[in-house]
Amino acid sequence: MAPKVIELGPSHFCFDQTDDDVQYVAKHLPWYGPKYSPHDVPSFYDISGITEDPKAFQTVIDLFVERYRAAGAAGPTHIAGFDARGFIFGPPIALALKIPFVMIRKAGKLPGVLISSGKYETEYSTDETVMRLGSVKAGDRVVLVDDLIATGGTALAGFDLVDGLGATVYEFASMIALPFLDGIGKIHAYKDGRFKDVSCFTMVDDTSIGSDMGRDPEEGTPRVVAVGDVAKYAAAADRKL
Amino acid sequence: MAPKVIELGPSHFCFDQTDDDVQYVAKHLPWYGPKYSPHDVPSFYDISGITEDPKAFQTVIDLFVERYRAAGAAGPTHIAGFDARGFIFGPPIALALKIPFVMIRKAGKLPGVLISSGKYETEYSTDETVMRLGSVKAGDRVVLVDDLIATGGTALAGFDLVDGLGATVYEFASMIALPFLDGIGKIHAYKDGRFKDVSCFTMVDDTSIGSDMGRDPEEGTPRVVAVGDVAKYAAAADRKL
Repeated sequence: MAPKVIELGPSHFCFDQTDDDVQYVAKHLPWYGPKYSPHDVPSFYDISGITEDPKAFQTVIDLFVERYRAAGAAGPTHIAGFDARGFIFGPPIALALKIPFVMIRKAGKLPGVLISSGKYETEYSTDETVMRLGSVKAGDRVVLVDDLIATGGTALAGFDLVDGLGATVYEFASMIALPFLDGIGKIHAYKDGRFKDVSCFTMVDDTSIGSDMGRDPEEGTPRVVAVGDVAKYAAAADRKL
Repeated sequence: MAPKVIELGPSHFCFDQTDDDVQYVAKHLPWYGPKYSPHDVPSFYDISGITEDPKAFQTVIDLFVERYRAAGAAGPTHIAGFDARGFIFGPPIALALKIPFVMIRKAGKLPGVLISSGKYETEYSTDETVMRLGSVKAGDRVVLVDDLIATGGTALAGFDLVDGLGATVYEFASMIALPFLDGIGKIHAYKDGRFKDVSCFTMVDDTSIGSDMGRDPEEGTPRVVAVGDVAKYAAAADRKL
């Protein structure tokens, strides 16, 4: 049975965090501290905890698919995923719903005639994303999918692009939410509230993940191990899920 | 029924290019010339022709899945995908086979304890890719999945990483082959033939795609269109599949 949906605020939803499936997903989201992360953030979540556990991965996909299937004929017509981790979650959802999967890519990657988001700030860097003319059009209802919402910079670029192509964002959906950064608040406040009525939905709140999911290895383990040292550090680096 | 598999050389396989499913996939692979591509190559294939057509996308996934399912208990234990387009094809295959999906990422993106390929040359750029210790191990049989094989630089990095982690490459698999660049020859010749017995499999040969799939728009259409000009250029940019 689908988990209960909780309304956190206007057009802002999440699943009941005590649901068994949601808990199973949360227990497959390890995190690393800054020494073992690509960015200087307190907890960098590792989605490979999901992708490397077939049951957890299928659960995440099924939960999204059930949500959109339940909307019936009024549901989404397209799934759009953000380069690169949104490419992991978007396609299985789109395939299950038998609707197109559309790429939102970093600049310099897509062929065709494009529109650009322009440069924008994310939690980590300055980015620019693009979509192809014709990928979505007026009348289309597009779900924007990403693994995580932090400050919302990437999400907003997706809103601008889908809107710029004349289509409608049906929902922004991410597997992990970092509520303290209030990315969803930023989406709803953006451009004088242009997207204030667009649903934003997140599956697992980072406060549901907890400190026990930290996976930093033993002190002294290198961040990048030489090939000849793999056996030496295998135990230190092994993840216990 | 699965298409007939053709042996092109030692440990080098493709599908019968006249098969209906293979033809259907080939007819959903538009390409653009250098003016409308991110790289200066004669034909840049656009995989959104596949991802935006649910039947074509499902066909690609099903063809790979049938191939690996047919191998039974001796088949692959893991699917590994290359950042970023391998992330689109690998996960649906892994989910269908109920085996883990493992990320091979560009440097600076993955958390955890990693091994690195070191820098290598691709058709377009100098790259470096990484995998996490523990993602694959001795005894694992790993399929490396990408959308396309060109010169094989990225593929070789994947071979080195999986090998460095002590696991075995079960097969390298890509949807599109550019045989004139002989990437598969390079894989089999690499390191005095260390991987010469590893199967390399491709679905659609670029000579099966043909000039009729070129999609460059009308002369004068900008590569990047301003948001206000989307309607003006929509017809010129529209893809006819």
